[in-house]
Amino acid sequence: MKSVLAGTKVLDFSRIFAGPDAAQTLGDLGADVLKIEDPGKGDGCRSLGTTDPKMMGYGPTFQAFNRNKRSMTLDLKSDEGREIARKLIADADVVISNFRTGTMDKFGLGYEDVRKLNPRLIYCELHAFGDKGPMSHIGANDLQLQAHSGLAAITGDGNGPPNRAGSAIVDLHAGMSLVAGVLAAIIHRDRTGEGQKVTTSLLQSSAHLMGYFYQEYWVTGYVHRAMGTATHLSVPNQAFPTKDGYTVIIAPTQEMYLRCVEALEAPHLLTPPFDTREGRMQNRDALIEVMSEVTRQFTSQEVYERMGRVKVNVAIVQDVAQAANHPQLEAIGGIHHTEIDGEDRRFVASPFTMSETPTAFRTPAPRLGAHTDEVLSSLGYSAEEIAALHQNGAV
Amino acid sequence: MKSVLAGTKVLDFSRIFAGPDAAQTLGDLGADVLKIEDPGKGDGCRSLGTTDPKMMGYGPTFQAFNRNKRSMTLDLKSDEGREIARKLIADADVVISNFRTGTMDKFGLGYEDVRKLNPRLIYCELHAFGDKGPMSHIGANDLQLQAHSGLAAITGDGNGPPNRAGSAIVDLHAGMSLVAGVLAAIIHRDRTGEGQKVTTSLLQSSAHLMGYFYQEYWVTGYVHRAMGTATHLSVPNQAFPTKDGYTVIIAPTQEMYLRCVEALEAPHLLTPPFDTREGRMQNRDALIEVMSEVTRQFTSQEVYERMGRVKVNVAIVQDVAQAANHPQLEAIGGIHHTEIDGEDRRFVASPFTMSETPTAFRTPAPRLGAHTDEVLSSLGYSAEEIAALHQNGAV
Repeated sequence: MKSVLAGTKVLDFSRIFAGPDAAQTLGDLGADVLKIEDPGKGDGCRSLGTTDPKMMGYGPTFQAFNRNKRSMTLDLKSDEGREIARKLIADADVVISNFRTGTMDKFGLGYEDVRKLNPRLIYCELHAFGDKGPMSHIGANDLQLQAHSGLAAITGDGNGPPNRAGSAIVDLHAGMSLVAGVLAAIIHRDRTGEGQKVTTSLLQSSAHLMGYFYQEYWVTGYVHRAMGTATHLSVPNQAFPTKDGYTVIIAPTQEMYLRCVEALEAPHLLTPPFDTREGRMQNRDALIEVMSEVTRQFTSQEVYERMGRVKVNVAIVQDVAQAANHPQLEAIGGIHHTEIDGEDRRFVASPFTMSETPTAFRTPAPRLGAHTDEVLSSLGYSAEEIAALHQNGAV
Repeated sequence: MKSVLAGTKVLDFSRIFAGPDAAQTLGDLGADVLKIEDPGKGDGCRSLGTTDPKMMGYGPTFQAFNRNKRSMTLDLKSDEGREIARKLIADADVVISNFRTGTMDKFGLGYEDVRKLNPRLIYCELHAFGDKGPMSHIGANDLQLQAHSGLAAITGDGNGPPNRAGSAIVDLHAGMSLVAGVLAAIIHRDRTGEGQKVTTSLLQSSAHLMGYFYQEYWVTGYVHRAMGTATHLSVPNQAFPTKDGYTVIIAPTQEMYLRCVEALEAPHLLTPPFDTREGRMQNRDALIEVMSEVTRQFTSQEVYERMGRVKVNVAIVQDVAQAANHPQLEAIGGIHHTEIDGEDRRFVASPFTMSETPTAFRTPAPRLGAHTDEVLSSLGYSAEEIAALHQNGAV
């Protein structure tokens, strides 16, 4: 099968989630991704989320973000390490890093240093709050940006402390935003020969996810608050309790609501004031209460089937295990299967599908430094020189 | 300034969030985006989030997702409307739609129909749960996928009902994923002349955001649960109460924790069992309680400043108004300013920055059908023909 980015060389100095996920998506598109890691410990993500000694250094979270890559160790604090980095950058198409602002410059690997080596280079930086402004000195992870952006304030039931969206959505959205920037830069370079610098930040990613709330606030002054799974825009439009969990029911229009009531066999949900859209909006709490009494009589699966039959939008609130095992993602080709150490292993595919140049799983995540020697050899280092680099800790 | 996609024609049949946001990002990159809307009502997003009669049909949420576009009305249920759509598609580079599966085929505008007209076409579909599999018949919005994906189950304090992430993150992540797919397809087409079909779905987007939890579950069997703003991986790493709100403090390593305690001037946070990382992990609840007593003595701003000075990662939990008005996003060029109806208006920029081909705000969101006549005229329709099309409701 053809790949869009076959032959494209990506050099990835980044760690944890956003950068590695962006590089992985480029790898799924066919790029040759070389991951540069600190000798000895490597990407901090390697042991994240695991305490099992067998998995230390090669945990599931690391594997989720690092397929289709080779790994090389390089001590950027050493002269030899930086010299090797410069050679690799001179021959790369894309460089990605997410150090604190200024770190790549300190290594002599900042954009102004390396663009001279390689004017076609697409040089990417992932920042926390950005490289200028009053907060540029603050390092950040996903949670901080969920807090700073206002997302935490509108997440949860609105009664207690703020809540975060349970996954690192700001990180992963920043990663995909960087992919978009890199691909746009490749289009421009293909056409003009000109490289450029592409930057993003957790701040920009979070603002993009929150932009329509900012817009409403800027125009109307309205400040949203947390509403559990509900929305101020319409009702019913939230999770309802069932015998064995919760199921989302969305029936904002009169037609959908009529179908919903029929499917629930609960005609009392049509007595005034619940018989009109306005009545339901004005008596939101009362409606939720009586509807919940009805839904509690069914299992989540029963509510799902009843709504599905009458084309009312519906979804069961699943836990992580149910979600991971649900057959729908598999049915649309959203899961890669591969064998690792004799076991069938599954990985979530990149979130878009291309008919002629499909994304692909070629290799599982690399062991730390597994490709150091082959890369050095391809740069022309002799066996003796490679041994010496290992000896002095540069790789 | 140069734009990557200047001259690229995008035809956008999509509605509400994901599709329009993807098309807007392509427009920010310079594409000529033509939004196709139903005569009379247009994109349902036009009045979403507003009840102000002055803003009906042109609300802030609509404006947030539809800059850099022209708008044309077209009744795809009419023969004339479909004929015009075919002419437009024959000349387009990218087509985007997010109708229920099968709708474009019903209009005679499915991929197999139109690829014959235009083999270079990049044809995009945004699905809910995908176009095959047991759930392909269920329509969906963002909330349903937050529920189905397991995200709602790991969001909130873990004690009451499930919660959603407050913004439509699955929608917006699907939009950015589609942008990546389209840009990759443009690279392939530039090089080979070959068009293709690019699809994504809210399901794939949600799975990408949750993939590392699925991976951990598949490998270890561990099923995450909701923990407010905290994480099972480390402590302190969550929002702490202050005099006037909440501030996130992240100090998972021993060095960061020592700096944090010093900055809070609270040496009792170093008495056993809180003096070691293991002790803090094993006495999580007790630590949170005593740390909260300390942070309650300061304002959020004071905690922010104290932590920032000692390089401990920190962020104030802001509401939507504070987040929208914070100067940092402005400082890194993350906000476009423009004048609409004599007022200075702000819009969140696309979440990546390109040094040579910057994204740009050219025009605010279009009024419904504002460009219908100019587009028809460019297709060769005469003034009389255009009047007749208006007359019979095709446009």
